[in-house]
Amino acid sequence: MKDFHFYAPTEVVFGATAEEQTGKLVKKHGGNKVLVHYGGKSAERSGLLDKICKQLDSEGIGYIKLGGVVPNPRLSLVHTGISLCRQKGIDFILAVGGGSVIDSAKAIAYGIPYDGEVWNFYTGEAEPQSCLPVGVVLTIPAAGSEMSHSSVITNEDGDIKIGYSNNLSRPKFAVMNPERTYTLPAYQTACGAVDIMMHTMERYFSHEDDMTLTDAMAESLLRTVKDSIFEVLVNPEDYRHRAQIMWAGSLAHNDLTGCGTVGDFATHELEHELSAMFDVAHGAGLAALWCSWARYVYRENISRFVRFAVNVMGVTNDFTHPGHTALAGIEAVENFYRAIGMPTGIGQLIGRKVTDEEIGEMARKCSHDSNRTVGNLKKLTREDMIAVYKLANG
Amino acid sequence: MKDFHFYAPTEVVFGATAEEQTGKLVKKHGGNKVLVHYGGKSAERSGLLDKICKQLDSEGIGYIKLGGVVPNPRLSLVHTGISLCRQKGIDFILAVGGGSVIDSAKAIAYGIPYDGEVWNFYTGEAEPQSCLPVGVVLTIPAAGSEMSHSSVITNEDGDIKIGYSNNLSRPKFAVMNPERTYTLPAYQTACGAVDIMMHTMERYFSHEDDMTLTDAMAESLLRTVKDSIFEVLVNPEDYRHRAQIMWAGSLAHNDLTGCGTVGDFATHELEHELSAMFDVAHGAGLAALWCSWARYVYRENISRFVRFAVNVMGVTNDFTHPGHTALAGIEAVENFYRAIGMPTGIGQLIGRKVTDEEIGEMARKCSHDSNRTVGNLKKLTREDMIAVYKLANG
Repeated sequence: MKDFHFYAPTEVVFGATAEEQTGKLVKKHGGNKVLVHYGGKSAERSGLLDKICKQLDSEGIGYIKLGGVVPNPRLSLVHTGISLCRQKGIDFILAVGGGSVIDSAKAIAYGIPYDGEVWNFYTGEAEPQSCLPVGVVLTIPAAGSEMSHSSVITNEDGDIKIGYSNNLSRPKFAVMNPERTYTLPAYQTACGAVDIMMHTMERYFSHEDDMTLTDAMAESLLRTVKDSIFEVLVNPEDYRHRAQIMWAGSLAHNDLTGCGTVGDFATHELEHELSAMFDVAHGAGLAALWCSWARYVYRENISRFVRFAVNVMGVTNDFTHPGHTALAGIEAVENFYRAIGMPTGIGQLIGRKVTDEEIGEMARKCSHDSNRTVGNLKKLTREDMIAVYKLANG
Repeated sequence: MKDFHFYAPTEVVFGATAEEQTGKLVKKHGGNKVLVHYGGKSAERSGLLDKICKQLDSEGIGYIKLGGVVPNPRLSLVHTGISLCRQKGIDFILAVGGGSVIDSAKAIAYGIPYDGEVWNFYTGEAEPQSCLPVGVVLTIPAAGSEMSHSSVITNEDGDIKIGYSNNLSRPKFAVMNPERTYTLPAYQTACGAVDIMMHTMERYFSHEDDMTLTDAMAESLLRTVKDSIFEVLVNPEDYRHRAQIMWAGSLAHNDLTGCGTVGDFATHELEHELSAMFDVAHGAGLAALWCSWARYVYRENISRFVRFAVNVMGVTNDFTHPGHTALAGIEAVENFYRAIGMPTGIGQLIGRKVTDEEIGEMARKCSHDSNRTVGNLKKLTREDMIAVYKLANG
């Protein structure tokens, strides 16, 4: 096992009445003038935005609102937010939404105290020295951004999607009410479940085989989400199972399921290029790629794929043929994705096969136009990336 | 499931080289003049204390030392610490040791900025408004105090042992090096494992049956500790299994295994009276009482005891006789305790049976000389407490 650093300082308030504490939480964590940042009309229509604003009013906290965040959140709106916040003397960013809104909020929070271009943090050209405090009212369990230190932004100028991670941006608090997820469409619910499971699976598939506690907890989380997603697709207002998925989303990406392991985020990296080019939902993109990645790399650590097959997917262990068990586990994931309405290939995802040129372009970007490899179980070169995209091109 | 609040802001640095970051962590978390608080000679002999002091020196941080913390840490030393720290202008308390040292450090940290008597926080007569920052270099995995908000202090004046919990005292950081636990005697190692498992079991045995994720993670933790303890008793320098136990100790008491449940801390409450009266090791006291408590209450939620028996203790489920399975699980815990050298009754713990008068006295104190009940699965009245002590008096 590897030495590790675990830091998850976000104060979580979870439950059906959690939102009522939003005003108090903003105050407690130092907010005096707040940017309420959100996505589309659903936060307005559902009455959530009004509710939150009333919470701020009742604590005497001033605020302005900025909506319009889209999936794969755009740098241009981040720029708008930074200007607006500077102009209005904002000292706290409150994200009301899912991962895109939170990531956009984090980018604005980095940008306000920084004289240069905020995108430079994402490209690695600069390092932030500070960040405004961010709070979250979560409405979509998926990205785990409510407890994570990462933020993924898309620069429309070149369709470049890059993630940046820094503890400075870990949200101060996260308010989570499972009832807010009742109205999520089935497709988006399933995309979220895939994203949550992938955050854990990408930490799980590792060369480190001796962090028993982390592995066992990761398997617990994966089984829980795998079972709960069917329940909520049948009954969207199943509080208990909505709650499992929501809490799993946070624990899947606050580093708990990676303590002592190294992980392999190749699928996330490959997917970022897919959603940058085709603007698809991140979770669906991950589903479209994972099984191809797994079949491409499983021989690097067969026993781990066997363990996953047996402990998570419930595959019967063929002790004399570990390779068969490993592949049966991958097939079980494929069947699971199909059963919850997720694609298992790029063709199903975007409605057509991608061309060789498009594959080359994604691989070029994913390798940062250089010799950069992605992943760890097997370090994928640009040729490997092309091979995985081709395998997934069904 | 219940609404919950999860707040575990402690920065954990875990691994064989973790201690080397102590100085930097103290500085990062605002320490300029530090009280290094520790227990007996072992921290001196092992060279750990010197190493930590050198770390502080190299960061230019001033410090004074105060050792002498004993198991079931005493209020008198807390008073000494408070006076000393005020006199020397201390602004940070660094605990080097296990739960007793950390709890003593927390009490000192509460007391320094408070004009009144610090014991009043423990008795509930006063509420702290602030607390000096506390950092931890952990040497004994057991109490989980390195990430918890609780502190248990014994007032020698009346042998009263009381726990007090407040988020103000959550340690800012915890440095954990599994190698530091190699020299722990077998008995103390086993006591620690019992304490860790009990922190999780006391959250697990609940009337709340629908927090799937929390239950699954709790079971993962319990199985991991149950397996790892045998490995480290055979080979005390088994890094991997020492690491599992150490990390489990923190997760067992940072509230992760209680999210959405209510829990039943009756055994802890009953044990506090036992160790206040006989000054026994806390973990051993818990082992001596738990099976009797479990047999006394299991009918309140048989299916939960069945689940525990099957998922944690590996008992074969007798589907037609759930009561048999539940009892077989309790018996399996008893056998497990025996196998790791722990007592399963008070007689084995203190070398003789306790008298009816002593039992009456413990129950009187445990009920706070009033009608206070303890526990939740079954709320134990004073008569119930007497019954459990008598059941355990073997």
